[in-house]
Amino acid sequence: MSVLQGKLLIGQKAMFGQSSSILAIDPSTGLKLEPPYPGGSAYEVEEACQLAWKAFDIYREISLETRAIFLETIANKIEMIGPMLIDRAMAESGLPKARLESERARTCGQLRLFANVVRSGEWLDVRIDEQLADRNPMPRADLRQRHIPLGPVAVFGASNFPLAFSVAGGDTASALAAGCPVIVKAHSAHPGTSELVGNAIQKAVIECKLPEGVFSLMYGSGREVGAALVADARIKAVGFTGSRSGGCALMKIAQSRNEPIPVYAEMSSINPVFVLQHALESRGDEIAKSYVASLIMGAGQFCTSPGLLIAHKSVALDSFVQVASKALKENTSQTMLTEGIYDGYQKGVSRLSSNSKVREVARGKVKNSLNQCQSRLFITSAHDFLNDKDLQEEIFGAVSLIIECDDDDDVAHIAEHLEGQLTATLQMDNLDIDIARKLLPIMERKAGRILVNGWPTGVEVCNAMVHGGPFPATSDSRSTSVGTASIFRFLRPVCYQDLPDLLRPDAIRNSNPLKLKRLVNGKRES
Amino acid sequence: MSVLQGKLLIGQKAMFGQSSSILAIDPSTGLKLEPPYPGGSAYEVEEACQLAWKAFDIYREISLETRAIFLETIANKIEMIGPMLIDRAMAESGLPKARLESERARTCGQLRLFANVVRSGEWLDVRIDEQLADRNPMPRADLRQRHIPLGPVAVFGASNFPLAFSVAGGDTASALAAGCPVIVKAHSAHPGTSELVGNAIQKAVIECKLPEGVFSLMYGSGREVGAALVADARIKAVGFTGSRSGGCALMKIAQSRNEPIPVYAEMSSINPVFVLQHALESRGDEIAKSYVASLIMGAGQFCTSPGLLIAHKSVALDSFVQVASKALKENTSQTMLTEGIYDGYQKGVSRLSSNSKVREVARGKVKNSLNQCQSRLFITSAHDFLNDKDLQEEIFGAVSLIIECDDDDDVAHIAEHLEGQLTATLQMDNLDIDIARKLLPIMERKAGRILVNGWPTGVEVCNAMVHGGPFPATSDSRSTSVGTASIFRFLRPVCYQDLPDLLRPDAIRNSNPLKLKRLVNGKRES
Repeated sequence: MSVLQGKLLIGQKAMFGQSSSILAIDPSTGLKLEPPYPGGSAYEVEEACQLAWKAFDIYREISLETRAIFLETIANKIEMIGPMLIDRAMAESGLPKARLESERARTCGQLRLFANVVRSGEWLDVRIDEQLADRNPMPRADLRQRHIPLGPVAVFGASNFPLAFSVAGGDTASALAAGCPVIVKAHSAHPGTSELVGNAIQKAVIECKLPEGVFSLMYGSGREVGAALVADARIKAVGFTGSRSGGCALMKIAQSRNEPIPVYAEMSSINPVFVLQHALESRGDEIAKSYVASLIMGAGQFCTSPGLLIAHKSVALDSFVQVASKALKENTSQTMLTEGIYDGYQKGVSRLSSNSKVREVARGKVKNSLNQCQSRLFITSAHDFLNDKDLQEEIFGAVSLIIECDDDDDVAHIAEHLEGQLTATLQMDNLDIDIARKLLPIMERKAGRILVNGWPTGVEVCNAMVHGGPFPATSDSRSTSVGTASIFRFLRPVCYQDLPDLLRPDAIRNSNPLKLKRLVNGKRES
Repeated sequence: MSVLQGKLLIGQKAMFGQSSSILAIDPSTGLKLEPPYPGGSAYEVEEACQLAWKAFDIYREISLETRAIFLETIANKIEMIGPMLIDRAMAESGLPKARLESERARTCGQLRLFANVVRSGEWLDVRIDEQLADRNPMPRADLRQRHIPLGPVAVFGASNFPLAFSVAGGDTASALAAGCPVIVKAHSAHPGTSELVGNAIQKAVIECKLPEGVFSLMYGSGREVGAALVADARIKAVGFTGSRSGGCALMKIAQSRNEPIPVYAEMSSINPVFVLQHALESRGDEIAKSYVASLIMGAGQFCTSPGLLIAHKSVALDSFVQVASKALKENTSQTMLTEGIYDGYQKGVSRLSSNSKVREVARGKVKNSLNQCQSRLFITSAHDFLNDKDLQEEIFGAVSLIIECDDDDDVAHIAEHLEGQLTATLQMDNLDIDIARKLLPIMERKAGRILVNGWPTGVEVCNAMVHGGPFPATSDSRSTSVGTASIFRFLRPVCYQDLPDLLRPDAIRNSNPLKLKRLVNGKRES
């Protein structure tokens, strides 16, 4: 572990921060992990922003191939860290080895996928309307549009994905793919993992001969370093995954700037699952088991954990609850990511336990160890749910609330009442099609992803994915933070009117050197 | 004019508002124009929002062909109003007949263009990643993405385009094209024009058998009716063209909601024109004349009026100023849109006149009539400009400020110092290519549209247009308010996982009934 130095990475420099130190803690033992990570201060924020700003105009105009190779080089360098990365991430997060290995594969796969997105150039969305010199009553100028990156982006590492949503995670990959320099504020739970990955990116920057300001990494408190970053005039967008309060605080800072900027905060979702009656009756047992399996996965520490299950009050539901309870009781507890998350989970669960309108139906086993997430299942009525705001808030961890409805109207009413969600799920059989059709438009208005007969945990990194949704699921429902469409978060269109060809960027030149399929005079090139 | 009733249009109803009345005023005479328009109140906002909400799920799922025909029907109905529309718009705006006729043509052309955008379906951005049941270590689900509309949109009519940016203007056309019901808050300067156009849309709604809530029209003050609309939970986005203070007020309301929503406010731009030295020397006279022509067009009441011209202090610039002055002095004043706009112009011009660092070089003729915009030309130095915030603010009207620079560094410095702009223009010759290359990336960071050897007034409605730009030009640089790409402002992506084909919306069905060129497994269908 001697490779860990506890240094901020500012461009190609590594330096100790000026603020108080962070020490990572192994959540399974409570032991502190060396080295200390002194936090950044206004000085390093200034340095990082200045370098990022200087790098921006250069980085955004390097060839698409160079940018793609850069992303691939980052992936290679991360893999080259070897088992040390997994070991440190395990120690800092309490997550099991297999999970972290697959998260690393996902992280690197994601970078390589974005490399190919960059190469394809579709994201440039080039549109050309050629000159019509003889048009009456007015001639038309030559007008050409391409997308350019917004500018340097501040990325906040997430607690629950120390690799795939942190230093080289989805936000970083999509911002770099778009042509934006990135300054990461590491999550304080895993500074060592962050430093290792940061080193890998730093090496990729130099190997690809890019301006050093393309990437910097800072530690420190969100309220100081994070707030200073978001307030800096050179930062033009923000990527964040975390709590609703944290995300809203960043939105507020971003909106109070002289130049407000977009914040992509992925925050809070309880991911309702509607189990329709025919499905419940015909295969309730199977649904109950897979529900619990999705719920307890990773101690429920996923943004898409199924926190709400809605079904008709019925004999079939009683049986469903029995099977789910049995499955949950067999579940052994897992270590949560941090003591803070564990405390938050305990508080949330106590809030439900002490609510007279809610009944606990099962709890999982618990190991005699630190920060163990004892999974829980509660039940309440539609009426009580609708009348108690407390029951509608996300509790981060393996807890879910079953809602008993009197009829399909109750079910639709619950759906309509919910805040914005990352996901909404239907468990249905063919005979449930009528109520499914009724629920679908409501679910579309509420969620970024709609599933049928699956479970929301497990977010595929692909072209069609939407990991987003209306507030408070995210701060901006027009975007996704997973999948190739996330590149659009960091782009804006620019129109070029009557530029001489030798001044035009490649994407819009007559000779089409990037071989793009452009929209020319309203027709897509083939 | 008896067709004018002064009634709000709430769905298919027409009703008198409950608040104090607005009377349009002919800015050229100061005379009040009948009838009075009682303003809307909380009651009508509630009515309109409820109808819009009820219409939303239906309207967004009608066939693309029906939606396209609806847009075309609106255009037809507007044309069928005949000369009455032009007469009333002339009386309410002081704009000349030819201008309003071409604005009507633009408005109807825009609606028809969007009809074809709707038909093409490219905006649905359909992406399909097919199931990979045998993939290791994990199978992939079937994932399909399409775009859906955000929800009901509040549109604020603009003072300076009583047709093309008001009731059936760009914001309304793009929102309706996206599938969003629209509630328009008419600009108080032209309620009669608004009612006529509103009637046309109302008729189109019924003729196309659409739910009535697809369109409503309200009058009243922005601070009351406008604020109530933006605050209503059923409104999901806002389109606005107007002042910086007005736009920022709406942004604040939108951000303070329980569910923050996007505001597309097009606000303030001074549209810098950089006249490079070789161009200035070789054809300064011609540039000076076209500069003044662009400046005085429509009394400078365009968002893209060239309010700033930057050039080297030189003999050539002296000559340029002489020619421009001569042209300006020959210009006869035009009536401004409203008394308020005239007052604002006078105040802005006085601010420049009384600034000791600024010298007036010319003023146009002025007619002995009400609300006349006497065009003005001022000059200052780069140094003084950079050190005085006052000089950097937009003055709405036919006034422009010439900035004398010592060298190209001064020019670049000015460019870098500017706030966000709708447009930035280069006047250049081949020999200016080096400084042009240096300025281009700065201009890209600052503006939504970059012109070479043209003038920013005149915004083509086409596929490649960007009428947008960084704050304060607009509240959201990721979008355009003119051109077909503006449809994306009102859309968000939704992902459908493992839906049975009979539950899928047409856009993502296996049989591809909309015949879209979808992105399937990362490859574009041909």
